[in-house]
Amino acid sequence: MKTIALFDPIREDLERVKRKMRQAAQTEHERLTEALQHLLSSEGKYIRPALVILASRFHPADEDKVLALAAAVELLHTATLVHDDLIDGSLLRRGLPTLNATWNPGATILTGDYLFSRAASLAAETQNVRVVVIFSQTLTLICGGELRQLFSGQSRPPTMDDYYRRISSKTAALFATSTEAGAVLSGAPEDQVQALRNYGHNLGMAFQIIDDVLDFAGDEEQMGKPVASDLRQGIVTLPALYFLSGGNNSGVVVQVLNGTRRDEPAVRAAVDAIRASGALEAAIAEARRFSRRGQEALKVLPDNPHRQILFELADFVVERNR
Amino acid sequence: MKTIALFDPIREDLERVKRKMRQAAQTEHERLTEALQHLLSSEGKYIRPALVILASRFHPADEDKVLALAAAVELLHTATLVHDDLIDGSLLRRGLPTLNATWNPGATILTGDYLFSRAASLAAETQNVRVVVIFSQTLTLICGGELRQLFSGQSRPPTMDDYYRRISSKTAALFATSTEAGAVLSGAPEDQVQALRNYGHNLGMAFQIIDDVLDFAGDEEQMGKPVASDLRQGIVTLPALYFLSGGNNSGVVVQVLNGTRRDEPAVRAAVDAIRASGALEAAIAEARRFSRRGQEALKVLPDNPHRQILFELADFVVERNR
Repeated sequence: MKTIALFDPIREDLERVKRKMRQAAQTEHERLTEALQHLLSSEGKYIRPALVILASRFHPADEDKVLALAAAVELLHTATLVHDDLIDGSLLRRGLPTLNATWNPGATILTGDYLFSRAASLAAETQNVRVVVIFSQTLTLICGGELRQLFSGQSRPPTMDDYYRRISSKTAALFATSTEAGAVLSGAPEDQVQALRNYGHNLGMAFQIIDDVLDFAGDEEQMGKPVASDLRQGIVTLPALYFLSGGNNSGVVVQVLNGTRRDEPAVRAAVDAIRASGALEAAIAEARRFSRRGQEALKVLPDNPHRQILFELADFVVERNR
Repeated sequence: MKTIALFDPIREDLERVKRKMRQAAQTEHERLTEALQHLLSSEGKYIRPALVILASRFHPADEDKVLALAAAVELLHTATLVHDDLIDGSLLRRGLPTLNATWNPGATILTGDYLFSRAASLAAETQNVRVVVIFSQTLTLICGGELRQLFSGQSRPPTMDDYYRRISSKTAALFATSTEAGAVLSGAPEDQVQALRNYGHNLGMAFQIIDDVLDFAGDEEQMGKPVASDLRQGIVTLPALYFLSGGNNSGVVVQVLNGTRRDEPAVRAAVDAIRASGALEAAIAEARRFSRRGQEALKVLPDNPHRQILFELADFVVERNR
C-alpha cells in the first residue's frame, strides 16, 4: 500500500478497507475478478477512506461499520473513475492501462455499474439510514455535475463560478460525505458533524485545485498520464481561468481550449504560457485558502491525534507534488 | 398512462408514482430534463411499481414510503434500460428512439448513472434499512448477470441453466424485490414477505419467457422494435433452446446464432423454422408453469382484492401479446 506517511497510525485500518473492497469486487468470473482486482490494486492514496476513519475517531464508533463505509466511499470513487475514463477515452490512470483500454465499452459500463451496486451495498451495511441518504445524494451530485458540464459546456465559456461548482460536485462532495458520514457513524453531536463536513468540503476543493495545477506541472512519467490532459480536452481549470482573466496574450491557450489547434507544439506552447504567467502560483494560493478554511473548521473538535492528522492533511494536499 | 386494465383499482397511485419519477428526474438543464421526461413518458406497463403497491396492501403501510419505493424500482429499471440500449446499440425502445440514438455515449452513460443515483435516493426515502439492502443487492444481481453473459458467452453455447440464471437476474430479481420490499414496508409477517417474494420471482420468470417468445412472434410495428432482436445479436433464449434441443434440422438457426449469417433472409428463415417447430408453444407452457407457481405462493396471504389482482396478473403476463 503506497498511501501517505501521515496515515501511518491508521495504516492497518486502511489495509482492512482494501481487503474489504477486494472482497466486494469478487465475482464468479475469473477474468472479470482479475480485472477488478487489478483495478483496485492501482495504488491510490486512500484519502477518502482515511477521511471516513479519522472523522469517526472523535467518539466511539462500531469499527466494522466504519470500515464498510470507508470501502463504500472508495468503491464509489472507483466506479465513477471507470465511467469517466471510458467517457474521456483515457487509456492510462495512475500509470496503469484503464479498463476501457483493454475492454469493450459494454463491459466497462457494466463494471462501473457493478461497482456502484457494491458500493451501495457496503454503505447499507452501516445500517444507518442517514448515512445511506447522504451516500446516494452524493452520487446524484457527482453525476449531476458531470451532466451539467456536458450540457452547458457547449453553449458558453465557463466562469470561475462554473469551475467552483464543477469541482465541488466532482471532488469536494465525496470528501464532505466521507467526513460527515464518518462523524454520523460515531454519534458525534451535530455541530461536530457539520464541522467535519465543512472540513471535508474545503479539503476536497483544495485537493482538486492542486490536481488541476499538477496537470500543468508534471511530466507524463511522474503523473502516470499525459501532461495537460484537461487542456487537450478543452476543459478549463483554475490555472487557465487565472491566465485568461489576467490580460495575458492568450492566443494559443484559447486556440487549444476551443479546439482550433490541438497539435503537440500548440499544447506545449499553451502550457509554457500558463506556467510563465504566475497562474499556477495564484491557483496554489487559492487552494491554500480552502485548506486553511478546513483547518479552521476543525477547531470545534476535541483535540486528539486524529484531529492533528486531519490538520496536517490539509497542508499535505496543498504541498504534494503528485 | 397506458398501463393494463387489471391495474384500474390502483391507477391513481400509479399516476402519483409517475409524477414522483418525473420530479426525481428534474435537473437544472432544460435539454437534459426534456430528454429525461421524454424517456419517462414512454408508456411502460408499470408492472414493477404496481407490484410494490399491491404487495404493500395486505397490512397498513405508510403510503408515501410505498410510492417512493415504487418510483425507485421503476427508475432503477429505466436506468438499466438506458445502459442496455447503449451496450446493445438499440435505436428503438417501445417504438421511441433510445437516448443513445440521439446522444453521445458519454451523455447516455451519465444519464443512466444519474437515474441510478435518483433511484437509490428514493429507496432511501423509505427510511427502511432492510429495503435499502434488498434494493442495492438487486442492482448487484442485475449487473452481475449481465457481466456473466458478456464473459461466459464467448466460451461455450448457453444451456437451459444459463438461460434461467440469466433471466432470473435480468428480470425476476427486480420483480421479487418489488414484492418483497413492498411487503416489508407494510410490516407483513415473514412468511407473507417470503410468499410475496416467491410470487414476484415466478412472475418475473414467466414475464421474461413471454418477452422472449414475443420477440419471435410479433412484427416490428406491433412490438416497437425489430423482430427477433435477440437472435440477431446471437442471444439464445428459451424458444431457440427448445428448438435446438428438439432434434430439428437447425442449420440456419445455428448460423444466425453464431453469426455466420445475419442477413435478412437468413433471420426470416430462422424465425420461421423456430415458429414451425412448436418451440414457442413449449416456451409458453413453461412460462405458465412459473405463473402457476406464483399463484400457488399467494395462498398464504389474506384473501383481499389485491391478492385477486396479483393472481390475475400471473395469468395476464402469460396471455399478453405485447
